[in-house]
Amino acid sequence: MLNIRLIRPVISEIPDSVIEAEVSRFLPEGVQVLAERIGRGPRSIESQADVVEAAGEVVKVARRAEEQGFDAAAIYCFADPGLEAVRECTRIPVAGAGESSMLVAASLGISFSVITVLGSLVGNIYNTASRLGLSHRLASIRSVDIPVLELDDRDRLLQALEREALRAVAKDRAHVLILGCTGMTGTANALEQRLIDSGHSVPVVDPAGACILWAQMLAGLGLCHSRKTYWYTFVEQM
Amino acid sequence: MLNIRLIRPVISEIPDSVIEAEVSRFLPEGVQVLAERIGRGPRSIESQADVVEAAGEVVKVARRAEEQGFDAAAIYCFADPGLEAVRECTRIPVAGAGESSMLVAASLGISFSVITVLGSLVGNIYNTASRLGLSHRLASIRSVDIPVLELDDRDRLLQALEREALRAVAKDRAHVLILGCTGMTGTANALEQRLIDSGHSVPVVDPAGACILWAQMLAGLGLCHSRKTYWYTFVEQM
Amino acid sequence: MLNIRLIRPVISEIPDSVIEAEVSRFLPEGVQVLAERIGRGPRSIESQADVVEAAGEVVKVARRAEEQGFDAAAIYCFADPGLEAVRECTRIPVAGAGESSMLVAASLGISFSVITVLGSLVGNIYNTASRLGLSHRLASIRSVDIPVLELDDRDRLLQALEREALRAVAKDRAHVLILGCTGMTGTANALEQRLIDSGHSVPVVDPAGACILWAQMLAGLGLCHSRKTYWYTFVEQM
Amino acid sequence: MLNIRLIRPVISEIPDSVIEAEVSRFLPEGVQVLAERIGRGPRSIESQADVVEAAGEVVKVARRAEEQGFDAAAIYCFADPGLEAVRECTRIPVAGAGESSMLVAASLGISFSVITVLGSLVGNIYNTASRLGLSHRLASIRSVDIPVLELDDRDRLLQALEREALRAVAKDRAHVLILGCTGMTGTANALEQRLIDSGHSVPVVDPAGACILWAQMLAGLGLCHSRKTYWYTFVEQM
Amino acid sequence: MLNIRLIRPVISEIPDSVIEAEVSRFLPEGVQVLAERIGRGPRSIESQADVVEAAGEVVKVARRAEEQGFDAAAIYCFADPGLEAVRECTRIPVAGAGESSMLVAASLGISFSVITVLGSLVGNIYNTASRLGLSHRLASIRSVDIPVLELDDRDRLLQALEREALRAVAKDRAHVLILGCTGMTGTANALEQRLIDSGHSVPVVDPAGACILWAQMLAGLGLCHSRKTYWYTFVEQM
Amino acid sequence: MLNIRLIRPVISEIPDSVIEAEVSRFLPEGVQVLAERIGRGPRSIESQADVVEAAGEVVKVARRAEEQGFDAAAIYCFADPGLEAVRECTRIPVAGAGESSMLVAASLGISFSVITVLGSLVGNIYNTASRLGLSHRLASIRSVDIPVLELDDRDRLLQALEREALRAVAKDRAHVLILGCTGMTGTANALEQRLIDSGHSVPVVDPAGACILWAQMLAGLGLCHSRKTYWYTFVEQM
Repeated sequence: MLNIRLIRPVISEIPDSVIEAEVSRFLPEGVQVLAERIGRGPRSIESQADVVEAAGEVVKVARRAEEQGFDAAAIYCFADPGLEAVRECTRIPVAGAGESSMLVAASLGISFSVITVLGSLVGNIYNTASRLGLSHRLASIRSVDIPVLELDDRDRLLQALEREALRAVAKDRAHVLILGCTGMTGTANALEQRLIDSGHSVPVVDPAGACILWAQMLAGLGLCHSRKTYWYTFVEQM
Repeated sequence: MLNIRLIRPVISEIPDSVIEAEVSRFLPEGVQVLAERIGRGPRSIESQADVVEAAGEVVKVARRAEEQGFDAAAIYCFADPGLEAVRECTRIPVAGAGESSMLVAASLGISFSVITVLGSLVGNIYNTASRLGLSHRLASIRSVDIPVLELDDRDRLLQALEREALRAVAKDRAHVLILGCTGMTGTANALEQRLIDSGHSVPVVDPAGACILWAQMLAGLGLCHSRKTYWYTFVEQM
Repeated sequence: MLNIRLIRPVISEIPDSVIEAEVSRFLPEGVQVLAERIGRGPRSIESQADVVEAAGEVVKVARRAEEQGFDAAAIYCFADPGLEAVRECTRIPVAGAGESSMLVAASLGISFSVITVLGSLVGNIYNTASRLGLSHRLASIRSVDIPVLELDDRDRLLQALEREALRAVAKDRAHVLILGCTGMTGTANALEQRLIDSGHSVPVVDPAGACILWAQMLAGLGLCHSRKTYWYTFVEQM
Repeated sequence: MLNIRLIRPVISEIPDSVIEAEVSRFLPEGVQVLAERIGRGPRSIESQADVVEAAGEVVKVARRAEEQGFDAAAIYCFADPGLEAVRECTRIPVAGAGESSMLVAASLGISFSVITVLGSLVGNIYNTASRLGLSHRLASIRSVDIPVLELDDRDRLLQALEREALRAVAKDRAHVLILGCTGMTGTANALEQRLIDSGHSVPVVDPAGACILWAQMLAGLGLCHSRKTYWYTFVEQM
Repeated sequence: MLNIRLIRPVISEIPDSVIEAEVSRFLPEGVQVLAERIGRGPRSIESQADVVEAAGEVVKVARRAEEQGFDAAAIYCFADPGLEAVRECTRIPVAGAGESSMLVAASLGISFSVITVLGSLVGNIYNTASRLGLSHRLASIRSVDIPVLELDDRDRLLQALEREALRAVAKDRAHVLILGCTGMTGTANALEQRLIDSGHSVPVVDPAGACILWAQMLAGLGLCHSRKTYWYTFVEQM
Repeated sequence: MLNIRLIRPVISEIPDSVIEAEVSRFLPEGVQVLAERIGRGPRSIESQADVVEAAGEVVKVARRAEEQGFDAAAIYCFADPGLEAVRECTRIPVAGAGESSMLVAASLGISFSVITVLGSLVGNIYNTASRLGLSHRLASIRSVDIPVLELDDRDRLLQALEREALRAVAKDRAHVLILGCTGMTGTANALEQRLIDSGHSVPVVDPAGACILWAQMLAGLGLCHSRKTYWYTFVEQM
């Protein structure tokens, strides 16, 4: 049995069990996921300032996950808060939702667009694509213009996703779409269907599924991040 | 239960069950893999000419896998023979060992080297990296100079892998290594250990594990390739 | 006298002499071209699956061309079927219509668009640009949406070419255009004239001319492909 | 008179006046610099974990600088801790030492190497180059293997810098060198001279000078960062 | 006191003192700028042919500037005429308006557009971006379609700039704008304001300010161009 | 019969007929080449300053060639002096030796090195590769350290070429070599043979042959440069 820690980089009233159920449907038997929220920090991550606020707490949860014997961890947020620092501070593989979604998309077609919540995340998402060397395959970054905490209204969300997805496909020539917020999880299939109804058969990557499956994949391969890129730093005081 | 077809693009006397056992150790419960060899073609894949010879047969096996109800398929060869054509001809996701290994490596460090069997595969591997847009992260392509059909001698193989791996790390500044032939599967851990003994802590990606886990990941996400990149072509006569 | 083998990677009722006449008008005195069709394979090449089907036969014709003493060969199809394998298997230079057209375009302006027959060739064309490292200069890939075997209707073709060419120039900022199918040969001048009539002075590359002149150029320079990229493989059984 | 806030992202016993004197020699009359340390955080920045620890405090100092009427700010650390978040949270231009050094180097020659303190900063520096789109001009990242807090020993430092600089020039073909730590400020001229003595005339960029002059340049141009990339976020609680 | 020579690569009736006043407002106390026109050459620079005509004369003025003891020089034209040759022939740092504007823009947002006078400068501007390795961050090159010698009509200019700027921001996704002609100097603030009135907060880089401040920055850092890229050539006869 | 003007951008005592003979051996019957020297300018081209000095004269010869009815022109120098300006000023296609050699090399293998006369040309050659978008395929630029006017000593030249070629192949992983000076024409075959004797089968591109055959190819295709990139400028006074 593989055990994966899902790190929620926000303070939230939504119980961890709800999130665990959401991501478990992507997983085979033999993989168990346990979620944990950070102790203090932002209620949602919608900017680089939010990333800075959350990152230190994400490191703490990740280090604890290693001590608790988890096989891998995944950061449950498309902005990948603290991802680079976490990899320096742990000896278990750690996946980010933004990074893994883009790498998955890279195997599905020649270009991809990200549809995120707000324009305030454009810089963060562009940086992830640049860091991976995939910015030339990024057709566009679009947003539904709905704050994270209002994503519950699934009708409004799907309508906005469909609008931006059609623009991404028709205007920006995206061959693959990525939901640019883990809070959008569960809408990929419905969005794919709406696009098919409009005559466009393009896959939609769910970042929640991508990060948890990426973590499982790395654990299954017995891999951890390179110490040439991510030195191991035991930071007592953190 | 997810069922994955592992396509072996060579004619071979090694029973499918042996290969199934080799890759199953990467998989969690709930994922089953069944291998199938092509009916005619090369005994090993060591050049673009071999790729051409095998590709048509790979398409046939993949199409049959879809009819048989498999959830996904993986091509068991680092040269990804027929990968692009297969994706056009099937409605299940298909992973390639070369492609998935490079995408996995891209999340582990800033640069990677591939160590393959013979220099005759350099062009093929470079093309895969270029197609993915990752050629600038490819530190080098090196070879152990051992033909595929002689990889059984694991001592000789590991010695040659260690020699080239040390060069890749020290001279080419590789932060991650990839075994450039599925016939090398099972040596990644031993190679990692030898490198640690030489003072280098770098991950080694096993392409057999990468392609089977990539197939599982795509199936888990419910994704198939974009029809904008890979038109669906029902080719009766193939 | 230079002798060039033009390899037609399709089965076709159009006599070789017709094709020879079509391409000879690009050539100076002192260069002779002889065409040869493959023995079995697709009737047209409109997908990666077609490429796979034709590639092995292309290798055979190319190897025979070498034995027959030709100075160079050119593959008469924009999808470059078998190009990489052929280069491994022969000691005469071999040109591809897709590859040579893009390299010619790269010397004519800062960006180029390809206008091909069907959207099913987008992946193939993108891969050629990526392999050459020119994908960032590719303004767009457009299609006239006419199957290869219906290209005879020159009025319909030219009308569709003009429509897509104007879009490529006005919307995609293409400075150079490439006809993305050798079956379109002979329409470049007329298309250039129509674009001038619309106020756009942009060159249109004819892929049939490009591949035959590229083959002549390599033969004139006494060059063959690098054995570091394309190992020479004498494949008895092919 | 332009007033620039120099943000020191470490806790330190070195008085701000010492740092102010160090950077003032790069400035013309008419530009005044005032330094301020963060209230709590790391003693030095040698990893991404250190960056995470410092970033939130850097934002606070930067926001205060805006309220105090400074014309611009510069972050006095090559790792650019908090740079992206700071730009979201302020309406004055903010320079980073890593970013501005690389952009200066880009105008001095066709390739540059960074010589930093420890290998633990390689990932951070590579990411800055990638984010700027300049990673293909980065010849290498080398380190003197001296922790920041031991840089006081200038003889040891210069000797190590010379050793790595000669390797960067001879082996990595660097045409320009960048000191990869603001703690190395003041050694650029001496290093240039030593390289000239070895027959290599290459410029050495001082990151302390680069960031303060970059801040002055942006202020002089009346420019601030784009709100399309860096949304303005008034974050009450930070 | 830093002394900077501003090289005007055109013959012109506008006195040098007018240009000096224009650029001095970007400079702090302690930096003095003196302009000098070339002796013969084009009246404006609107093509590569104009660049060729002016370049030799620019070299002469630059060499004289070095002899006269200037600390740095800047070429007052966005096309950077003679920039590469000047750097070979002098031992003082030399800035180009095109090059420095793009490097400044690279620190302000993820993409930039250049709005120049005429389409005839597109090739030149694209080459500068390519040489710097920044062509993938260049959202577009647009022109106001006004010859240099008619830029005096500031109302017409601003109206055209606003029109193209709005297109660059809305259609081309530019996050930063650059005025692509030093003759447009002084309009950046007004253009920024008009864009804000349309709801877009994007910085506009003034190339006159950029080149003079870049020259001051290099002089302040004590840097000159790399002799590995720009060999020093004492050319007696020039 | 195609007539091509070969523009010699130097003043020289070597008669045009000698150069015509040198390049004619690359050409088929049916193509005639006539050389012409510039009237005044440098004796050799070894720097960007030399390029500036020659460029204006090259434009004059090219414009005359158009008036004289030539079908195409080629500039007989690897530094491509005046190439961009010439294309603006003429309505016949114009080839450059540097540009065409790199595009030819791009079809022969995955990477190429240029071996030129002196290190002073490194910047020029890098810029050509960057402008074409091929800098990532450029393995290295090396020099034989022999001035152009001393290339007559063929033994010395070949020995130096062999030394640098072996380094390019072994150290820099070049798969293709380019002679980086038209003055080296005629040594490619001998160099190829020497490399074969050392166990390396790599093609060597002769820039004199490449530029003349490129000009013939463009003329054969009936192509001229894009007016979107190269506006046509009738410059009376030049």
